[in-house]
Amino acid sequence: MRIVRYEAVDGIHYGVEDGGSVERIAGEPFSAIEQTGKVDDLSEVRLLCPVNRPRIFGVAYNYREHTNESGKEQPTLPVLFMKPSTAASGNGDAIEFPRDGEIVHYEAELVAIIGKGGRHISHDDALGHVLGYTCGNDISDRIIQRQESKFGCLLAGKGYDTFAPMGPAIVTDLDPTNLDVILRQNGAVKQSGNTSDLLYSVADIVAYLSRFMTLLPGDVIMTGTPAGVGPIKPGDDLEVEIPGIGILKNPVVAAAY
Amino acid sequence: MRIVRYEAVDGIHYGVEDGGSVERIAGEPFSAIEQTGKVDDLSEVRLLCPVNRPRIFGVAYNYREHTNESGKEQPTLPVLFMKPSTAASGNGDAIEFPRDGEIVHYEAELVAIIGKGGRHISHDDALGHVLGYTCGNDISDRIIQRQESKFGCLLAGKGYDTFAPMGPAIVTDLDPTNLDVILRQNGAVKQSGNTSDLLYSVADIVAYLSRFMTLLPGDVIMTGTPAGVGPIKPGDDLEVEIPGIGILKNPVVAAAY
Repeated sequence: MRIVRYEAVDGIHYGVEDGGSVERIAGEPFSAIEQTGKVDDLSEVRLLCPVNRPRIFGVAYNYREHTNESGKEQPTLPVLFMKPSTAASGNGDAIEFPRDGEIVHYEAELVAIIGKGGRHISHDDALGHVLGYTCGNDISDRIIQRQESKFGCLLAGKGYDTFAPMGPAIVTDLDPTNLDVILRQNGAVKQSGNTSDLLYSVADIVAYLSRFMTLLPGDVIMTGTPAGVGPIKPGDDLEVEIPGIGILKNPVVAAAY
Repeated sequence: MRIVRYEAVDGIHYGVEDGGSVERIAGEPFSAIEQTGKVDDLSEVRLLCPVNRPRIFGVAYNYREHTNESGKEQPTLPVLFMKPSTAASGNGDAIEFPRDGEIVHYEAELVAIIGKGGRHISHDDALGHVLGYTCGNDISDRIIQRQESKFGCLLAGKGYDTFAPMGPAIVTDLDPTNLDVILRQNGAVKQSGNTSDLLYSVADIVAYLSRFMTLLPGDVIMTGTPAGVGPIKPGDDLEVEIPGIGILKNPVVAAAY
């Protein structure tokens, strides 16, 4: 099932996409999908970030080759951070290149969306708490990231508004252990990984996070990026493709302020 | 004005506290305070975290002497992290000591609560975006924190449920540049600092955060802890006192699971 969040002429809705049309559901999709019979034409709506201002958990250094290209040791535990909810945006939304940005990178990622919350979720139960998956781009200002990480923290470098585009749809009933994750910059493939190379799988991360905190419906987990990260600039067109999910497209524009 | 969030027999409310009574307000206090005339007896209600599941921004190494005791260099920028919303709790709520906890520390802090959101807030305007202030305790599992910080990130070590108690009230019309911040453990004073020693002031932090992200009403900023951090254990009674605000009291209990 493909679940989209979108803006129609009469407001914002969740719906189930099928071909060129989308059938609205009642409320949010996290606990149950209740279809309403009301159908919109996909070409007449604007897709939005699949979750409105979600909690965004990120996993750093979760592919060995990316860790190597970053010059880091391989992690001995899931290395977690948060991106603020205001960083979230949707398919087609612009990524704002900061006015004082110098080295700002794309990072293509598989994103898991929590459906059923919980604490102390077992590894066996973990994937049952995931509603579905989407594409994400964990945009990162490396200059600020390095300055913060030197002090053992990370927020501003990954926290700009527009630095967490996600979409186009939440796809359910997908095996997250064998998905290609591809990034194209102006049509050229720059990253091409597969989630089978994740150091910590989606199930690992869900179980690990819930040891500490109660996961909530709508939480999103950006699972880490494969090798091949590189700089972006205003005017770029970025695409994150995960076959089986679709393509997340975002232009890069210079921030106005 | 003292604003409290509390549970009465008929539900959860915000109210304005005066002496032993609290007058309910309509809705939330972030944009405007609309008193309703309905009064509760403070002794008959239970105080809650002043904001329900807020975004929590933390500032690390924001007092020179604490940075020295931590064995770190002095920061060259505000060192930011997030605690998940599920870590938030209120006055009187138990801090759960993790089952595998070894070195878990208290950290008494001044907490600023955003009233009016915004982006690119100037330093001059920054305090006008703050609704008020409360006491906070940034509980930290040092073992996990050190493991994460080695990889330049921080979340789980400060992210357990119950690791961000705040309260008892949001106090408005307070000068945040000269407030004593005191921590008592079982009655003994362990931390005694003053916000005049903050490396980055509340105004600095609000302006800095808003360079990156849109601040939202109800966001909370834990401004950092003075020197004197130390370990807690189940059975402890912790108090964070900021004269002019009040005392945040939390017992430490062994986590059941």
